[in-house]
Amino acid sequence: MTLRPETVGGRLARVRAHVQGAGLDALVVTHLPNVQYPTGFAGSAGAALMLPRTCLLVVDFRYVTAATALVAGLDGLVTLATFERSYDEALVDLLRREGTMRIGIEAAYLPVSRFNALSAGLAARSALPIESYGSPPALVPTERLVERIRIVKDPREIAILREAGRRLSAIAGTMARLVRPGRSELAIAAEIDAAMRESGFSRPAFETIVASGPNSALPHARPSARAVEDGDPTVLDFGGVYDGYCVDLTRTVQVGPTSQALQKVYAAVGEAQQAAIRAVRPGVASSAIDAAARSVLERHGLGDAFGHGTGHGLGLEIHEEPRITRPTPGLPDQVVEPGMVFTIEPGAYVPGLGGVRIEDDVLVTQDGCEVLTR
Amino acid sequence: MTLRPETVGGRLARVRAHVQGAGLDALVVTHLPNVQYPTGFAGSAGAALMLPRTCLLVVDFRYVTAATALVAGLDGLVTLATFERSYDEALVDLLRREGTMRIGIEAAYLPVSRFNALSAGLAARSALPIESYGSPPALVPTERLVERIRIVKDPREIAILREAGRRLSAIAGTMARLVRPGRSELAIAAEIDAAMRESGFSRPAFETIVASGPNSALPHARPSARAVEDGDPTVLDFGGVYDGYCVDLTRTVQVGPTSQALQKVYAAVGEAQQAAIRAVRPGVASSAIDAAARSVLERHGLGDAFGHGTGHGLGLEIHEEPRITRPTPGLPDQVVEPGMVFTIEPGAYVPGLGGVRIEDDVLVTQDGCEVLTR
Repeated sequence: MTLRPETVGGRLARVRAHVQGAGLDALVVTHLPNVQYPTGFAGSAGAALMLPRTCLLVVDFRYVTAATALVAGLDGLVTLATFERSYDEALVDLLRREGTMRIGIEAAYLPVSRFNALSAGLAARSALPIESYGSPPALVPTERLVERIRIVKDPREIAILREAGRRLSAIAGTMARLVRPGRSELAIAAEIDAAMRESGFSRPAFETIVASGPNSALPHARPSARAVEDGDPTVLDFGGVYDGYCVDLTRTVQVGPTSQALQKVYAAVGEAQQAAIRAVRPGVASSAIDAAARSVLERHGLGDAFGHGTGHGLGLEIHEEPRITRPTPGLPDQVVEPGMVFTIEPGAYVPGLGGVRIEDDVLVTQDGCEVLTR
Repeated sequence: MTLRPETVGGRLARVRAHVQGAGLDALVVTHLPNVQYPTGFAGSAGAALMLPRTCLLVVDFRYVTAATALVAGLDGLVTLATFERSYDEALVDLLRREGTMRIGIEAAYLPVSRFNALSAGLAARSALPIESYGSPPALVPTERLVERIRIVKDPREIAILREAGRRLSAIAGTMARLVRPGRSELAIAAEIDAAMRESGFSRPAFETIVASGPNSALPHARPSARAVEDGDPTVLDFGGVYDGYCVDLTRTVQVGPTSQALQKVYAAVGEAQQAAIRAVRPGVASSAIDAAARSVLERHGLGDAFGHGTGHGLGLEIHEEPRITRPTPGLPDQVVEPGMVFTIEPGAYVPGLGGVRIEDDVLVTQDGCEVLTR
């Protein structure tokens, strides 16, 4: 997970360009994946302050040793800061010292209480020299300043995601063996998690879903003590974090005889997934990829049985941009570009019959896409 | 995880009393453990609207089937609501329909962007009948309205935490066998995670820490490919979620010969932990429990080597109240009461020598505490 100074330098420059482009002097980064992306710092707490000429990485006691080593390898691009009392007081002090005036915050993540604490801290101290600049410093809500850079993966990230996809696919190949009548959903989930650790994933990217029989009709079932029965469809949805990056995969396995009705659902979902994958290429709106899957399911009378989006971006987070969904009224559609990585996971859930979901991860290439999981 | 109607009724009544006590007509609950606590709903998204006469559970498409079944068992105490577009639009519509005026939000969790969306939604529609009440509805930041109820566990929660502690302790008893020269930190962590699944935990409560040799001096190291060597101290910090509740435990295992310096650190940390456990009883300030551990380490010259707090509350979340730390200037100290459950985990981290942390979970009883992990 250590980043080379050139990578850090490039990412910092891109973030700074977006901060400047938004008319800001600084950005307070508190969403951890957005701290990690330009610095490589992967702690469970921390913040970054993007300033015109430097990036301050703010960590608490627990991470001083690790962050000191990290920063030492970054040719002075990132400066470490720590504190006595709280993150917010430290951020106020650092912003004061810089005399920063227009300060962006990450509105999608910063809680109201921290916004209020930062505001109060900056206002309380504005009787000092900072006043001479005119008005007191302002906190400006921003969205997606770092996310819109993270959405296109660089070659290093693509290499990690490709390898992660390969490893996850190998585990997917063992599903037919894992799912047998009499085995509980929990036992199967435990075996999937163990296989991911064995394969080099540092942790599951989310709580593994094993949903058998009637549970398969619940898109987000949690594994239960229910034992798989003959005739059950079983939805297995799992993902892992490999070298910091998330991949995600779903298979639906049929044990024993399949009803004709369920066979039809399975075929329709498979056809929808293929249609969506074929629709992926640079320049296409993400909603058009969703529509490709959705129209197939609608044609098969399963439109209402498909209540979620077709996919989501993958990267440092398990759910990130782009969202492959129906268009959101009033919001511009995300146009797909080379280097984006996302899932394609249509499903159909029919209470009383069962559910089917099939999910793979794709990388957008110059003229289409590469399926990372197979 | 299904709650009985009496439990839900009691918890809702207590939340409502706090909402009323804060001078509010309603509380928008968006922090998921605070949604789960009074309703039993354990999805990965959702919200609750606490109103004087009812509680609305708001879920998206994915959870409609599961939440319908859940609500059906609650004797009308909770009403289900779902939506077409977004959680925030749904919440605005529901608040409008009720004509609610003073609406609390959870300031420690609600992001600035959602606060702004709710504000704008309520303001935009205030030209309608709601105007007749006088002023437009107000969103009021609140903190700890549900948390301060969750801090004291009820008998059902205590039974779960006691059983979880028993199971985690059984795994802790195998550490000396797991940690052997030549084994990597990652392999040991994988084996701990598998043992937790096997034992009935639904998932690890956090990323398992296995920190050997020099890594043991980093309080929050992530497991690496480093193989344990003869003479290493190894810090093993792991926890699991059992029936929705989190327990947490740390052991430091020594492989092969121990330097005298490290033996002293180990003895001092053990003494500090015992002193803190002895200090736990109703009526004591949480900072006094921290001071009991801290003063022992200071006496051994290890005050600076202990940079974190002595413990944290356990429950639906792995880190919750009470915080067992030094007093926070300007904030009242938390007084310990029967039914609180928290960790006692002093540590000492000496770069160049190694680190030691010992952690157990305690339940405050009428006259002291019961150690849940042993």
